[in-house]
Amino acid sequence: MKRMNLTMLTDFYEITMANGYFQNGLKDKIAYFDMFFRKVPDDGGFAIMAGLEQVIQYLKNLHFDDADIEYLRGKGLFNEEFLQYIKEFKFSCDVWSVLEGTPVFPNEPIVTVRGPVIEAQLVETMILLTINHQSLIATKANRIVRAAQGRGVLEFGSRRAHGYDGAIFGARAAYIGGCAGSACTIAEQDFNIPAAGTMAHSWVQMFPKEIDAFRAYARIYPDNCLVLVDTYNVLKSGVPNAIKVFNEEVVSRGFRPKGIRIDSGDITYLSQKSRKMLDDAGFPDCKIVASNSLDEYIIRDILVQGAEVDLFGVGERLITSKSEPVFGGVYKLVAVEEEGEIVPKIKISENVEKITNPGYKQVWRLFERTSGKAIADVLTLPDESIDDTRPYLIFDSEHTWKRLTVTDFRAKRLMTQIFDHGVCVYESPDLQAIKDYCREQVDTLWDEVLRFENPHNYYVDLSKDLWDVREKLLIEFSGK
Amino acid sequence: MKRMNLTMLTDFYEITMANGYFQNGLKDKIAYFDMFFRKVPDDGGFAIMAGLEQVIQYLKNLHFDDADIEYLRGKGLFNEEFLQYIKEFKFSCDVWSVLEGTPVFPNEPIVTVRGPVIEAQLVETMILLTINHQSLIATKANRIVRAAQGRGVLEFGSRRAHGYDGAIFGARAAYIGGCAGSACTIAEQDFNIPAAGTMAHSWVQMFPKEIDAFRAYARIYPDNCLVLVDTYNVLKSGVPNAIKVFNEEVVSRGFRPKGIRIDSGDITYLSQKSRKMLDDAGFPDCKIVASNSLDEYIIRDILVQGAEVDLFGVGERLITSKSEPVFGGVYKLVAVEEEGEIVPKIKISENVEKITNPGYKQVWRLFERTSGKAIADVLTLPDESIDDTRPYLIFDSEHTWKRLTVTDFRAKRLMTQIFDHGVCVYESPDLQAIKDYCREQVDTLWDEVLRFENPHNYYVDLSKDLWDVREKLLIEFSGK
Repeated sequence: MKRMNLTMLTDFYEITMANGYFQNGLKDKIAYFDMFFRKVPDDGGFAIMAGLEQVIQYLKNLHFDDADIEYLRGKGLFNEEFLQYIKEFKFSCDVWSVLEGTPVFPNEPIVTVRGPVIEAQLVETMILLTINHQSLIATKANRIVRAAQGRGVLEFGSRRAHGYDGAIFGARAAYIGGCAGSACTIAEQDFNIPAAGTMAHSWVQMFPKEIDAFRAYARIYPDNCLVLVDTYNVLKSGVPNAIKVFNEEVVSRGFRPKGIRIDSGDITYLSQKSRKMLDDAGFPDCKIVASNSLDEYIIRDILVQGAEVDLFGVGERLITSKSEPVFGGVYKLVAVEEEGEIVPKIKISENVEKITNPGYKQVWRLFERTSGKAIADVLTLPDESIDDTRPYLIFDSEHTWKRLTVTDFRAKRLMTQIFDHGVCVYESPDLQAIKDYCREQVDTLWDEVLRFENPHNYYVDLSKDLWDVREKLLIEFSGK
Repeated sequence: MKRMNLTMLTDFYEITMANGYFQNGLKDKIAYFDMFFRKVPDDGGFAIMAGLEQVIQYLKNLHFDDADIEYLRGKGLFNEEFLQYIKEFKFSCDVWSVLEGTPVFPNEPIVTVRGPVIEAQLVETMILLTINHQSLIATKANRIVRAAQGRGVLEFGSRRAHGYDGAIFGARAAYIGGCAGSACTIAEQDFNIPAAGTMAHSWVQMFPKEIDAFRAYARIYPDNCLVLVDTYNVLKSGVPNAIKVFNEEVVSRGFRPKGIRIDSGDITYLSQKSRKMLDDAGFPDCKIVASNSLDEYIIRDILVQGAEVDLFGVGERLITSKSEPVFGGVYKLVAVEEEGEIVPKIKISENVEKITNPGYKQVWRLFERTSGKAIADVLTLPDESIDDTRPYLIFDSEHTWKRLTVTDFRAKRLMTQIFDHGVCVYESPDLQAIKDYCREQVDTLWDEVLRFENPHNYYVDLSKDLWDVREKLLIEFSGK
């Protein structure tokens, strides 16, 4: 059912091009590719980078096995010399990447691959697929977690995920983005993401009466008793039965009940009424969990209305990023080496927003020293450095008269080398560390960037030298 | 990176409930669960069932291995007797399912599982995940294919899929729904889905000039020459260079060029102008392929405007079902056996649309004999039969005064037994056969049901006997 080696999860054109480069004597030509995206999902102010650990695993494993070669031979498009070459090749590229959990912005490289063009091209599909998926979910999770204003958010979406990895790596990305845990068991087993869950409606239906179901559950899990109260009627039966059972089966055994879950109906109204009933019964410490097609907009609205919810279970709208299920990362050739010189390349397009930033680039983030807040990102040529002991002029690359001289700032390189000539030189931190790093880094963004609607447009500028390169190429190639 | 056994891809509450049933002496209690959905994505008139083959593989493999048991032991929630039980259990349920490729409608069972409640409950997450995902994509693909009105549609979305299975099984589902092929190499290797692809923009950029890139490609693939014409400027450089190279490198070698691909800009305008240039140059047989964020709405619009496109490459909006990325299938307890009697169960809800159809049921589809068109689906009790030699009265289960007596019809059972006491008794057809079956079955739907917007609401009715059971349970349980 599942394959260990995903080398063949590649668009077929990567292989026709690979053969094309091989036949044209270009197999050792060194190329540079950037992964970047053009638009933040949900019109948000930033995205969260995620998926690097799985990219590393894929690249470490990259090889065509005998069955792959046999299949390719059967296509009748490739000669034996080429098939022998790809059977024997070892991944030898350099890879740089922004680290997982980092807030990232449109039109800046988040992964750069340098190496023989056949190899650097071949990995396009899997790098995009992996980072697009996990960054999409981490970004959505971060929005939902921020809407919950400190209340916990649990990822509940496995059953609506797009395939098995959609559930498993989706839970991973949701955790990076700030979720407190997941309903997905395998996510705990594989990634140490706290997994939790108590009962479905079917549990309640399996017993003659609702109270029998609650009682049976409480007797087995008196120290962990959380019951689902909406199988029949939340206020008329669910909560009264819960309170009765909490007293008879939980408190009587020396424990406190954990909570109730409401999965349908008007969450604001039902949670307020339930809260009052629980408080009046002597259970102010009993938590209320809400689920049922939640997202950041509904959570924000019901909290504004005073919903008494302690913990949100968020399913389909998180695991599919329902309001915008596409993270549009692309992977574009930005340079080639000609006799040791890095020659920048550009892609012009009828759609202006599809024009690429050419050249092998560095990405810098400038932080205000006094507040620690991020001011702007700046892309530079590889050999440029930003001296943060002196004022630095940034300007908008389209509207170049929009300028700002930055002072009293700290400049940080965002890209870390992950592979050095095919050898992995980076070890992913554990998931908890990535999650903590994400929270710290999101805290460096101004509130204006964090807004759900119409956030401030964070600056991603080009250095003067890089801007000159781009301008020159635009003029040179626009009529070609 | 990938796991062979997905038993642990289950919501944690399935395991807490399993333990609960075990501790309450209910482990051998026979339960019936239905999978069904409540709403067709995109407000369409029907969905396409897909994913059964992967459900079968999962169920055949179902078992907890030592590492799973060790992990569960570490949770500190389960005793050794229970752990021993789940370590040793063998799947022993009956499973019935609607076959892949069948049009399906809201509120009818598409999968039914009968067996010991622990087992029948445990498989909820994976059955939902698998069928929800593939049915979502098959349904979307079918809409897009119908919009293309006989032109081919290729699935191009791997890089924007939600994880690896999202791409691989997404390509499978898209093929069932009617796509002609995929860009995903592994989909051909694993499922025989024709995979195709020629060049990316990077190929064009790798050469000093666009024409050099086309020329290099044509020399390697003279019999399969399709070039991407929008790297710099479609009409000023892309198409003229293509024509020049077709003449010099393809026709001169005795071949005909295959086509051009346009991936940006105004597809209607660019395709019409390109068509004229190709025709004037003596290449009326050269196909035009269009890609760039297409879906059924854009394809319909540009065809109405006279776009000259022969083949559509559809990526992110297909592989994520962007306009509605959730297929909301649910899995609900509908009956239990008490001393050999099947006792129907219901779930009431504050949201009326969340009330379930109780009982173990049969699903029938009634076809008009003269036209072969589907009239309605009818759910019945298990021992009821629909005699299609006599008139049959169907009625709306909410508005019971809406009635229709059907005559001259053929009644067909929609569910097939897949597992018999844990033994698989069904073999999936090959994918091409499923795809062909899907097309035939969609052809049995009236045009009114096929409409993209405001389609006719196809009837899914209850038999009188089943309706009586439901009414009785609603009254009995609504105040519980």
